[in-house]
Amino acid sequence: MNSADLGRRVGVPSTALFTDQYELTMVQAALKAGTADRRSVFEAFTRRLPEGRRYGVVAGIGRVLDAVENFHFDDEMLAFLRDQNVVDGPTLDYLADYRFSGDIWGYPEGEVYFPGSPILRVEGSFAECVLLETVILSILNHDSAIAAAASRMSAAAGGRGLIEMGARRTHELSAVASARAAYIGGFDTTSDLAAGFRYNIPTVGTSAHAFTLLHDSERDAFRAQVDSLGRDTTLLVDTYDVTAAVRTAVEVAGPELGAVRIDSGDLLLVAHRVRQQLDELGATGTKIVVTSDLDEYAIASLAAAPVDAYGVGTQLVTGSGHPTCSMVYKLVARAASADPADELRPVAKKSMGAKSSKGGRKWAARRLDEDGVAEAEVIGTGPVPAELAGRQLLVELVRGGEVVAREPLDAARERHIAAREGLPMSAMQLSRGEPVLPTEYV
Amino acid sequence: MNSADLGRRVGVPSTALFTDQYELTMVQAALKAGTADRRSVFEAFTRRLPEGRRYGVVAGIGRVLDAVENFHFDDEMLAFLRDQNVVDGPTLDYLADYRFSGDIWGYPEGEVYFPGSPILRVEGSFAECVLLETVILSILNHDSAIAAAASRMSAAAGGRGLIEMGARRTHELSAVASARAAYIGGFDTTSDLAAGFRYNIPTVGTSAHAFTLLHDSERDAFRAQVDSLGRDTTLLVDTYDVTAAVRTAVEVAGPELGAVRIDSGDLLLVAHRVRQQLDELGATGTKIVVTSDLDEYAIASLAAAPVDAYGVGTQLVTGSGHPTCSMVYKLVARAASADPADELRPVAKKSMGAKSSKGGRKWAARRLDEDGVAEAEVIGTGPVPAELAGRQLLVELVRGGEVVAREPLDAARERHIAAREGLPMSAMQLSRGEPVLPTEYV
Repeated sequence: MNSADLGRRVGVPSTALFTDQYELTMVQAALKAGTADRRSVFEAFTRRLPEGRRYGVVAGIGRVLDAVENFHFDDEMLAFLRDQNVVDGPTLDYLADYRFSGDIWGYPEGEVYFPGSPILRVEGSFAECVLLETVILSILNHDSAIAAAASRMSAAAGGRGLIEMGARRTHELSAVASARAAYIGGFDTTSDLAAGFRYNIPTVGTSAHAFTLLHDSERDAFRAQVDSLGRDTTLLVDTYDVTAAVRTAVEVAGPELGAVRIDSGDLLLVAHRVRQQLDELGATGTKIVVTSDLDEYAIASLAAAPVDAYGVGTQLVTGSGHPTCSMVYKLVARAASADPADELRPVAKKSMGAKSSKGGRKWAARRLDEDGVAEAEVIGTGPVPAELAGRQLLVELVRGGEVVAREPLDAARERHIAAREGLPMSAMQLSRGEPVLPTEYV
Repeated sequence: MNSADLGRRVGVPSTALFTDQYELTMVQAALKAGTADRRSVFEAFTRRLPEGRRYGVVAGIGRVLDAVENFHFDDEMLAFLRDQNVVDGPTLDYLADYRFSGDIWGYPEGEVYFPGSPILRVEGSFAECVLLETVILSILNHDSAIAAAASRMSAAAGGRGLIEMGARRTHELSAVASARAAYIGGFDTTSDLAAGFRYNIPTVGTSAHAFTLLHDSERDAFRAQVDSLGRDTTLLVDTYDVTAAVRTAVEVAGPELGAVRIDSGDLLLVAHRVRQQLDELGATGTKIVVTSDLDEYAIASLAAAPVDAYGVGTQLVTGSGHPTCSMVYKLVARAASADPADELRPVAKKSMGAKSSKGGRKWAARRLDEDGVAEAEVIGTGPVPAELAGRQLLVELVRGGEVVAREPLDAARERHIAAREGLPMSAMQLSRGEPVLPTEYV
């Protein structure tokens, strides 16, 4: 049963087919060779941050836990795999009984990460761990990309309101996950009702241009909206002429009007004019919301404008130029058998170019300087140095197949704020640069 | 009930909450104002193609039809909307009874489109049409973006095999829709089992580096794979040393080895060397599959290399730089009442900048030159000129709330090939340019 991160319990179908076929064929070949049960350690990490980014944001951990819990093959799926000759009979039998029974440790949700950070460490038999690869990467690559963009936007917004409204710009379920990741990254609300339903994220929304066009005049439309939604609603003022619309809006709603929304034009210029006009009309408490093709740079450029809240769509749900992370899931150590006494041996691909990886089961810790500011991401495979023991980053998420680390979404959101504040100031620069912390291997 | 495009019938939860809150608050205000039942026409279209692209590809129509069929509010959803005070009692009553009862026409799936093409035309009451906005745009914006990238890649591949393998790089359900859109755009197979399950897309996959690392030697791994999957499997040869691996692969599988896969390095150089080595070893029928960070440009640059198939991940599922289209859903005409005799009046936003739109209920036709090659996308609101009557692009999809245009996915795939072949040759240029057809309004 899926807990949707302690939000509303939503019946989720099995996640077992969100899987690349080769995971199953590897299980088949390993079962036949007698190697499927070799004790194994897989790790999810990135070799680099997206070009120019200073830090990454871990998001999707709660969804990964849901996915692991819901990873099981029902009869219809098994029939499909049999009919399509994806795998043989013994493998179908193995899959029919499949439940992940291993251990998972990882960076908690909202934490920041750097190149090489072992974001998730999955331990168990080779077969049970390899099957989870695709769905784990789907979730982490998507959700972390959105959270990273959200974090930059929330840094740029400097405490002003941030509304996630990108549902229409991405796959309908990607949209729900995006709203969740955006909330972790610092957004306040979402337009997406499914995100409110599943994750208890506050939802907002009032009207679009179509509502104005439906009515015989802008005044009729504003009156209809205020009659129904109250004076503290947000009226959209750029369907025809902004100045005329603001005047009409205050005439209809009075100076108690909640907010006006501007969705086109030169937002800096228009926001100043509208603020002046609202003030002259006595609507000094009426807020200004802007919502046109914003990204972190546009938000920053409006810092001096009288804007109260930003609505962000496309650029948020597409990761502001980086719609996916480059997380990979690699076998880093394995034993020669299922025997717990058998030693884990580090393994690593050693081929051409940038795709090689570091073997060994890893820990990670963030070292602080004397002022308490983070100065390095330290990663090792041996014993943890005593001075770093209290700064370790991986936490236990799944023990013997049981999820042990559910938390409310607000915990991840607060953790992200704290983690970002613990970084050097230059982390908040929007300009392109190197990762703000070096990764050190010990 | 969801038909998943005539593929496997998959129980899909209601799509009604994949919706921005403002769609519901607009319905509330319009119900109170007595305008909710005004006969209305909404259209989905783009104002522009992504920068430099020569044509767009319509994808997601089958999924839109599923979404419209499954758009209904169940008790739990209604309770959520009531508890969160999203809308008032009369609106909840309206939503409880909601089923789309109007008409939808649109470009059939796989067709190409241009700026202004009325890709979908939704007609009914204001309330019933406006509620569908968000989910329709989510689907069309996502799926069309992926199909457009797939189409460029398939043009670049010139008939060589194309494998979709991006599941791990995008949201797990976005991945399924991506595999579907990629198939429409010309891909042959997918690694995503859920895409095979839901849409009958052929699935493929054999092994990853982890499988080699699991075993005590590369030879052991290859032998395990060949023992289980047969000699015609694909062996991954770049875990350690490619030349040694190819030699081992042919020793283990014999010259009947199906294929080798190369996932790193300078693919052009390595493919030539591997082909030569395979031929020298007598494995002249063994194919070469390459799979490392490919996009349409990399595929084109390998045209002269001895490559048999390309596996594409990240760049496909992120739309090769354009992960979303910019489709919008606009009220273009409405009557003053629900009376069918009441005249439909064109409406349009007339504000600043590029966001204005053209009012009126539109038809579209593709005009051909004397050689039968497309020369213009013609869009109008009046009578269709006789010479274009047989070239109209919109087809009936939903009549009185009933879906009337289900088709197998292969029909969309074949339609796309035909539509692309009907365009001027320059459509196939990968270089940046203007839309290959001008849009003419008559």
